[in-house]
Amino acid sequence: MLNCAVLGATGYTGAELTRILLAHPNVRITHLTTRQEKSIPLREILPSVSRDVKLAITPYNFENVKRKADVVFLCLPHTEAMTTGDLFLKAGKVVIDLSADFRLKDPALYPKWYGVEHAFPARLKQAVYGLCEVNRSRIRKARLISNPGCYPTGPSIALMPLLGKKLIAPGSIIINAASGTSGAGKKLVPATQFCEVNENYTAYKVNKHQHIPEIEQNLSGAAGEKIKVTFIPHLLPVQRGILATIYAEPAKASVTEDSIRKVLENAYAKDPFVRIKPAGQFPSLKDVRHTNFCDVGVSMDVRTGRLVVFSAIDNLLKGASGQAVQNMNIRFGFPEGAGLI
Amino acid sequence: MLNCAVLGATGYTGAELTRILLAHPNVRITHLTTRQEKSIPLREILPSVSRDVKLAITPYNFENVKRKADVVFLCLPHTEAMTTGDLFLKAGKVVIDLSADFRLKDPALYPKWYGVEHAFPARLKQAVYGLCEVNRSRIRKARLISNPGCYPTGPSIALMPLLGKKLIAPGSIIINAASGTSGAGKKLVPATQFCEVNENYTAYKVNKHQHIPEIEQNLSGAAGEKIKVTFIPHLLPVQRGILATIYAEPAKASVTEDSIRKVLENAYAKDPFVRIKPAGQFPSLKDVRHTNFCDVGVSMDVRTGRLVVFSAIDNLLKGASGQAVQNMNIRFGFPEGAGLI
Amino acid sequence: MLNCAVLGATGYTGAELTRILLAHPNVRITHLTTRQEKSIPLREILPSVSRDVKLAITPYNFENVKRKADVVFLCLPHTEAMTTGDLFLKAGKVVIDLSADFRLKDPALYPKWYGVEHAFPARLKQAVYGLCEVNRSRIRKARLISNPGCYPTGPSIALMPLLGKKLIAPGSIIINAASGTSGAGKKLVPATQFCEVNENYTAYKVNKHQHIPEIEQNLSGAAGEKIKVTFIPHLLPVQRGILATIYAEPAKASVTEDSIRKVLENAYAKDPFVRIKPAGQFPSLKDVRHTNFCDVGVSMDVRTGRLVVFSAIDNLLKGASGQAVQNMNIRFGFPEGAGLI
Amino acid sequence: MLNCAVLGATGYTGAELTRILLAHPNVRITHLTTRQEKSIPLREILPSVSRDVKLAITPYNFENVKRKADVVFLCLPHTEAMTTGDLFLKAGKVVIDLSADFRLKDPALYPKWYGVEHAFPARLKQAVYGLCEVNRSRIRKARLISNPGCYPTGPSIALMPLLGKKLIAPGSIIINAASGTSGAGKKLVPATQFCEVNENYTAYKVNKHQHIPEIEQNLSGAAGEKIKVTFIPHLLPVQRGILATIYAEPAKASVTEDSIRKVLENAYAKDPFVRIKPAGQFPSLKDVRHTNFCDVGVSMDVRTGRLVVFSAIDNLLKGASGQAVQNMNIRFGFPEGAGLI
Repeated sequence: MLNCAVLGATGYTGAELTRILLAHPNVRITHLTTRQEKSIPLREILPSVSRDVKLAITPYNFENVKRKADVVFLCLPHTEAMTTGDLFLKAGKVVIDLSADFRLKDPALYPKWYGVEHAFPARLKQAVYGLCEVNRSRIRKARLISNPGCYPTGPSIALMPLLGKKLIAPGSIIINAASGTSGAGKKLVPATQFCEVNENYTAYKVNKHQHIPEIEQNLSGAAGEKIKVTFIPHLLPVQRGILATIYAEPAKASVTEDSIRKVLENAYAKDPFVRIKPAGQFPSLKDVRHTNFCDVGVSMDVRTGRLVVFSAIDNLLKGASGQAVQNMNIRFGFPEGAGLI
Repeated sequence: MLNCAVLGATGYTGAELTRILLAHPNVRITHLTTRQEKSIPLREILPSVSRDVKLAITPYNFENVKRKADVVFLCLPHTEAMTTGDLFLKAGKVVIDLSADFRLKDPALYPKWYGVEHAFPARLKQAVYGLCEVNRSRIRKARLISNPGCYPTGPSIALMPLLGKKLIAPGSIIINAASGTSGAGKKLVPATQFCEVNENYTAYKVNKHQHIPEIEQNLSGAAGEKIKVTFIPHLLPVQRGILATIYAEPAKASVTEDSIRKVLENAYAKDPFVRIKPAGQFPSLKDVRHTNFCDVGVSMDVRTGRLVVFSAIDNLLKGASGQAVQNMNIRFGFPEGAGLI
Repeated sequence: MLNCAVLGATGYTGAELTRILLAHPNVRITHLTTRQEKSIPLREILPSVSRDVKLAITPYNFENVKRKADVVFLCLPHTEAMTTGDLFLKAGKVVIDLSADFRLKDPALYPKWYGVEHAFPARLKQAVYGLCEVNRSRIRKARLISNPGCYPTGPSIALMPLLGKKLIAPGSIIINAASGTSGAGKKLVPATQFCEVNENYTAYKVNKHQHIPEIEQNLSGAAGEKIKVTFIPHLLPVQRGILATIYAEPAKASVTEDSIRKVLENAYAKDPFVRIKPAGQFPSLKDVRHTNFCDVGVSMDVRTGRLVVFSAIDNLLKGASGQAVQNMNIRFGFPEGAGLI
Repeated sequence: MLNCAVLGATGYTGAELTRILLAHPNVRITHLTTRQEKSIPLREILPSVSRDVKLAITPYNFENVKRKADVVFLCLPHTEAMTTGDLFLKAGKVVIDLSADFRLKDPALYPKWYGVEHAFPARLKQAVYGLCEVNRSRIRKARLISNPGCYPTGPSIALMPLLGKKLIAPGSIIINAASGTSGAGKKLVPATQFCEVNENYTAYKVNKHQHIPEIEQNLSGAAGEKIKVTFIPHLLPVQRGILATIYAEPAKASVTEDSIRKVLENAYAKDPFVRIKPAGQFPSLKDVRHTNFCDVGVSMDVRTGRLVVFSAIDNLLKGASGQAVQNMNIRFGFPEGAGLI
């Protein structure tokens, strides 16, 4: 049994991660921690927990966690994960970070998009970006896995094979994304109050969302050239799920909807969590919520010659805690779907 | 007092129209009709109606309506409005049609997008397209007003002045739209059941929605050249509202976000129902629901040089019944906001 | 034109009240105030406001308000309304208080249910309880109108005539109520976050909600004897509306469902905002939302001999701001439905 | 591996049952059937299914099912389950019926509450009512298990121990229940359209819901005397979950909230799926959705001497398919939580 600690178990991703780990056949939870000063029974944060589970979320103590855990999941606010991650790496632990702190390779991007200098820029090189389907072999040997952001996951899965095969024009990508409200976390702000979100729909962080550089890093890597995208996130009156509607120009006239779909099917033929929709069917949140799937669909607008690609995930699962467990499964040689199917 | 009849008063748009007309200071409702065989008390369809209102929705009878009504609102399924509209025009009535039956100028588009030959193609020329802010002077003299579709209204208001001034590249327009479920009408289909819509979000009629030719007709008219757009509608788990997120390339390097905003502000400086958002603010459904406003916002993605324009309306008001009343107000010389503010 | 001031215009009830007053044919808004230190354009709080409305919500200043207002609406947190109300009464203004500060006649109830001693207990006697349908003649001459609470309004309208006629057993009343989330106000608390409320339903303040003594005061007054009720409020994942499902024993065997309905119909025969449902039909939130109506329905459970009475209102309208305007209309001799229909 | 067939796998309960059985460690699905004439890939009904699952829902054929299945789950409309159940019992299969067809012991109740004569009244005696926590020992030997209704489950679990110990007055029970919309099934009716349910809340089948006799049968059995209850169901704008708010008089003055809670804790001390809330905490839908738990809470209204008991379940799990699997686990000696935790 692998010993796991979850740091920051009171938030939405921490709680979801704990839920998965509790039912996982190959692991044991050694610590659930919080930055708060008092212990909290797990059942207050995760009400779906079984009666017999007596776990508590306890105040964070580095030495305690270090003593028992083999793998440490960081569900911490960004900047805090930097330092905590560094500490556990020095202590020889495998670290899976769900924050953005180790996602970007270029340290110069942190001040611009996250408003802080990176405290341990050397760790950025060491970190393996945990987009499972793309980096599986490197994840197997990683000590520091940087779990992808919720918004970048779907579009990266959908577009990277197409860019790799030069099927779409790199400069033409527009990502219109819509996310459930759990993506905003538990912080008390007016924008996530029920009466603001319910019966509403609106764009936010227009042209300045911090996931833009992460998306561009992924797509640029696949394309072998520097790519810029337009990315507009919207807030949906639902709990979970992200649907991205992606617009792009085919790179050449010979590209068809079928050829695009075929490339995607081949790219993910052996990936248990990616499902390519058949012609005429498109992803929807209800198909992926409470699952670790990423559904992808394709339509060519024959009238304009434009390609439309859709991706859908559950932002708390494939977009956060589910993918984190998938990363752990890959890293430690468990079946990739253990605890997730 | 102007005598009004509403044909098809049991649907969402018919009921909303009736609600507005009841409180309108310049009109009297003479008939509310249904294709069903039995009378229905209005309060069963429009529960917000006051206790004293004793109106009923009665089986449709042409002669009865003809006898009293000055203006006839058609809230009928498409193809049915064609023939009924023609009849009332022959009878000398002013017809305001909320269906799509008189919206397209080119009769050849009806078989392609609506699956039927147009029964009265000559009427298409006669019809004035009731996008109030654009066609006000022609509406004043119209006998047949074709009320715009819910999806075309917002993007047309947002883009027509920009195309008219050659500020955006005509071939570059992508419209990502999301609509509340009332837009689908009352027909019993699985796709609008609560358990399908709630907590869900998905695209539908991908690259084949029947509002595409109407949008293209409007934008082409403004641009003075034939324009094709990509248009992807999505279904939102809300009752009312359409937000369109529109992507376009500026036509030249000198176009800035501010210049775009200024053009829009000037274009609608005297229009009571169009509101241009200041820099950094964007339309949302909650700002327009239960109103006749069309809110428009603008952002230039300086990193990619792409323009993002947002429009928001209430699909049952500015997208249907509110605009129909606005058209009546213009046509009959009432204050443009009568019954609507 | 009557000069109105709204103190506390940034909350849900203040904004809704402002919306009604703006369209009211007999009044002029002189002040909208806030306890915050900076002015806020009204359109930021009330986005449905027309473009031409240039009003701002300004920092509260007693002298300014006093100079111009004839009637002062208090949408203030409780305890604050006590002192402010007293000041404006001394200044000769008519005060309509939407808080609970003047609702209870017995000052001893304030420490118990609201946690504070009442600062001006003498004002409690002076205050006229603004349940329009019941106290109309006293409201006409009132200087201080205490607007009823959202939860007490519906059950009081439904039960007071039945208690007055001794048709139900006074000790048997159980009120199971469910409210939309706007009832909780704008305060940032975890319980009103979207992800807590959405897809959820639960009781709260079980057997200790502060509206209990107000309900009991109303019902006791009607019965002519001291009545205690069981009252359990629940939070609904909707924006607006309260449905109360009320259980009671008939006072005698001769009481039938029809006789109950008849008594209610007679009691409210001339009241424009109370609608008694016919047999077999029951109130629902969708029938009353965005209206000032109180719908009441009745069913006798013939198997158990128990009576079930339902009441439905929009908590922000008949349960707060709508009723406040109805009170103003009565007080100043305007048509009772002015601004409300 | 136990061979399972699900008859009627396209509805909400059939699909949820299939989902659980697919992940259950001790069973194999041999048939998923439909009354429709064409096969349907399971993934169209159950989109969360894994890519590798190639199952289809096929047209029902008795002989085929009989050949392979050890246990047959009936997710059929009522009256249809009667005959189909009888057939499979004759064929020697264990039948778990999720309809109401075998729930009531008295055949005379079927014409009254379900509108039909029972075709096989003798089977009613044979049927074991599958309220797991209450009938566990009889379920172990049952050939026909009648799975409880969604509404009866929670209140029966909450009240039966209290009635058994004579702690509450049998004639005093009022059950105010609110259910998510999945409880209404997939049938296309206006009442379950999104625009009817969303932002709405209302009572339905007032004093005539068909679950009343089932509740009374359970409670009468526990009390050892004939009990009648008042039961009012309401429709909630949520997908899943039933909260029952139950009012009752204590049988004697010595009954306290603590004594009630203690009796419940003892009654269910070893039941993995019943959780009794500590003092001051109450069940909510969010705590039980997507789980097989039944949460129970208690509050004594000391002012009126009335007892309030709450129960919450997920109507598709503990209220239908979850409990059906729990019954199968008990019947076949699997761990009671297999597939459910």
